[in-house]
Amino acid sequence: MQHRPVSLALALTLVLPLAAATVAQAQDLSPNGVKTLAPEGGIQPTATWALGTRAGDFVFVAGMRGIDAASNTLVQGDEARVRKAFGNMQMIAASEGASLRDAVRLVVYTTDMYRYRPIVNAVQKELWGDGPYPPRTIIEVDRLNQDDIVEVEGTFYAPVGR
Amino acid sequence: MQHRPVSLALALTLVLPLAAATVAQAQDLSPNGVKTLAPEGGIQPTATWALGTRAGDFVFVAGMRGIDAASNTLVQGDEARVRKAFGNMQMIAASEGASLRDAVRLVVYTTDMYRYRPIVNAVQKELWGDGPYPPRTIIEVDRLNQDDIVEVEGTFYAPVGR
Amino acid sequence: MQHRPVSLALALTLVLPLAAATVAQAQDLSPNGVKTLAPEGGIQPTATWALGTRAGDFVFVAGMRGIDAASNTLVQGDEARVRKAFGNMQMIAASEGASLRDAVRLVVYTTDMYRYRPIVNAVQKELWGDGPYPPRTIIEVDRLNQDDIVEVEGTFYAPVGR
Repeated sequence: MQHRPVSLALALTLVLPLAAATVAQAQDLSPNGVKTLAPEGGIQPTATWALGTRAGDFVFVAGMRGIDAASNTLVQGDEARVRKAFGNMQMIAASEGASLRDAVRLVVYTTDMYRYRPIVNAVQKELWGDGPYPPRTIIEVDRLNQDDIVEVEGTFYAPVGR
Repeated sequence: MQHRPVSLALALTLVLPLAAATVAQAQDLSPNGVKTLAPEGGIQPTATWALGTRAGDFVFVAGMRGIDAASNTLVQGDEARVRKAFGNMQMIAASEGASLRDAVRLVVYTTDMYRYRPIVNAVQKELWGDGPYPPRTIIEVDRLNQDDIVEVEGTFYAPVGR
Repeated sequence: MQHRPVSLALALTLVLPLAAATVAQAQDLSPNGVKTLAPEGGIQPTATWALGTRAGDFVFVAGMRGIDAASNTLVQGDEARVRKAFGNMQMIAASEGASLRDAVRLVVYTTDMYRYRPIVNAVQKELWGDGPYPPRTIIEVDRLNQDDIVEVEGTFYAPVGR
C-alpha cells in the first residue's frame, strides 16, 4: 500500500476561507448550523419563538397569522387577514430564496372549517394562480393564539448555492 | 442527401425525446426544483392543494382521508375508511420510491381520540406488522374536511438515485 | 510551514470502524435508510409508534408529553409536566447529536391556550435562555392522548458526519 502525501498547506488554503465565513455567521447559527430567520420588515415575535429557520436546503416558517408588521396588530376583515397571513409566510420564505411555488407542504389551522376554508382557497388561488398548489392539510381547531381565525404553517425548499 | 460523419437525423432522434421529456417535466418543477406529485390512480384534489411533493430526498404527502379514487367519495365503514386513508398515503409515497417503512413522521388528526385511535393502531399494525413504526403525533381536533373522522399526514425519505 | 504527509493507511484506520458501525446498525434502517430511534432511558411507546427517526441530516421526534420514563406515568404538576415533555424531546434529539438550539421547528398542541401557553413560554425560556428560539406553531385542540394538557413535536437538524 502506497503512502500518498497530502499537503497541509494546501488543505488550509482550502479550509481557511470557509472557516472565516463560518465565524462571521456564527452568531446566527446553532451548533449544527441552523440559521434563525429575522428578515427586515417581518413581524416581531412576542414570545419564545422565531419567524423561521433554514437548515440545509429547507426553510421552516412558524405558523403565520394575519398580523400587520407595521402596527403589530391583526388585520381587519377575514379575507384581508388571511391574505396577510399568507403574505407574512411568503415574505419569510422569500428572504431565503424560496417562492410560494417552492412550498413543499402547508398546514392550515382554522377555527371554522365551513366559514374560513373557502376564504383560504380563494386567497391561495389569488397567490398561486392555477397552480400547481402545495400539498395541504387543513384542520379545524379549538382556538388559535389571540382567538384568531386562520394560521398557516409552511415548509419550503431552497437548495443552498442554487 | 449527403453522407455526414454523424447523422443529424440520428442525433435528433436520440436527443429530441430527452428534450421533450425535460420540457414535459419542467412544468411540474418549481423554480427551486420542487416536484408536484400526481400519480396515476390517485384521488383528485378538489381545491387548492396537491397530493404531494418531492424536494431533495424527502417526500411530503398532504393529509390523506379515506376517499376512494375510483368514485372520489368517502369509503363506508370506520376501519375501511381509515385503511383507505393510509392506503392513499402509501400509494403517493410509493410513486416516489418510498415504502411505509420509510416514513419519517406521521401526524394523525381525528375527531374522537377514544373512538378512532384504536382503529388507527389496528390499521397500522396491519400495514407495518410488528414495526418498527414511524414517530407519530395524534391529536383530536374539532373538525376535518367533509366532517371526516381521521386524516393522516406523512413525510417520507427517498434519497435521489438510491 | 511544514508539509505533513497524511497516510492512506491512517485514513482507512479512521474510516473502517465507521463502516463497521454502519453495518451493525443496518437492522434498524428502513429500505431507504431511515433510522428508528430508541435511545436508552427513553419512554416506552405503548402503541404503534416510535420515539423518533433520523433521515439524512434531519431528526424527527414524535409528539412528546410529560411522561416519566422510569415509571411510564404522567408527571404531576402542570409546569413540571410541560418541562418533562420538552425534556423527553430534548433527550431523543440529543441521542442523534442535536441540541435544543438545533430545532428547526416546534409544533405545540395544548388543550387550553390561555392556561398552558404561558407555562410553555416559561419552560422554553428556562431551556433556551434568551434565545434564539425555534419557529413554533401553537394550537388549542380538543383532546390529547390520556387527556393530557400539552404535547410538543420537534424537528431537528444534525448533519451526518458533523
